[in-house]
Amino acid sequence: MNLEEKIIKREPKYHGSIIDVEKQIVKLPNGQESSRDIVYHAKAVAALVITGDNKMLMETQWRAPVQEVTLEIPAGKVDSRDTGSSKDAMVRELNEEVRYRAKTLKHLTGFYTSVGFSDEYMDLYLATDLEPVSDELPRDKGEYLGIKAYSLSEAKHLLDSGKIKDAKTAMAILYWELLSK
Amino acid sequence: MNLEEKIIKREPKYHGSIIDVEKQIVKLPNGQESSRDIVYHAKAVAALVITGDNKMLMETQWRAPVQEVTLEIPAGKVDSRDTGSSKDAMVRELNEEVRYRAKTLKHLTGFYTSVGFSDEYMDLYLATDLEPVSDELPRDKGEYLGIKAYSLSEAKHLLDSGKIKDAKTAMAILYWELLSK
Repeated sequence: MNLEEKIIKREPKYHGSIIDVEKQIVKLPNGQESSRDIVYHAKAVAALVITGDNKMLMETQWRAPVQEVTLEIPAGKVDSRDTGSSKDAMVRELNEEVRYRAKTLKHLTGFYTSVGFSDEYMDLYLATDLEPVSDELPRDKGEYLGIKAYSLSEAKHLLDSGKIKDAKTAMAILYWELLSK
Repeated sequence: MNLEEKIIKREPKYHGSIIDVEKQIVKLPNGQESSRDIVYHAKAVAALVITGDNKMLMETQWRAPVQEVTLEIPAGKVDSRDTGSSKDAMVRELNEEVRYRAKTLKHLTGFYTSVGFSDEYMDLYLATDLEPVSDELPRDKGEYLGIKAYSLSEAKHLLDSGKIKDAKTAMAILYWELLSK
């Protein structure tokens, strides 16, 4: 079955600091026209960070889109400092956010976070064998974080009780549970 | 630690068919100002649908944001037809997309799909005890799907090999693997 849509017209709608928004007019496989809203976003990285005493690191952070403090694994965008590599971005974000260098950084998976309207693609890593960084990089302007360590049973309870509501963090906990079995 | 940001100003930037985009000027906890790009999106639902012969249903679908065909679990937006209930939306989407009614529909988890820039919240269900629907609902205009069933080992292979690149689908496979242990 041919599923492909052809782009007839692109209309830029918003150029923001972290997103670009476009409306597309497309031709469907049956020849009819429809429209698509698209949010372009940088590639992203996130890590399941496991400490020497087998706890995972999570951050509390204010999130403007949902007007609440969320509990999430360390994450960030791949940017020009990272020479395009998601692994470089992950090393930098771990330094900036949790002040650790992971001697072992393993790629777990990669995924589109919300492919219905956005191209954001995130690589998820497992970071272990941590050592404190000697060269602390500056945090992003306006980035306020609180960091804590949680056991697997604590993390699972936070997920099952709805206290964790962040997709990448939920996925990291599921991976951790599978890796622990 | 106080992490809250105060909204100083909201600037609507785009009113689309499935998203609304806003720029906010905010006051950070330290009193400085910053800006936030926010994409508002309807609540969403998705399901790990398991057939009587223990296979999961996935769909191929063209996704304009990434210009490719993706392999995903059945999903959709909660809309006015669902009287605000995500379970109603899930029942409707399962009818529209896979033509099944699930006699057992269990809530697995709920999460923000990309909380850094969007408020989209998705409930993930486990749908089992399937029976074909007698009242087929019409599909969305411009929705072209191909549906297939996969064993757990097939699904895991598709995830591990990078053929599945959709966050909700990856999460569903991880849940299925955990439920199968």
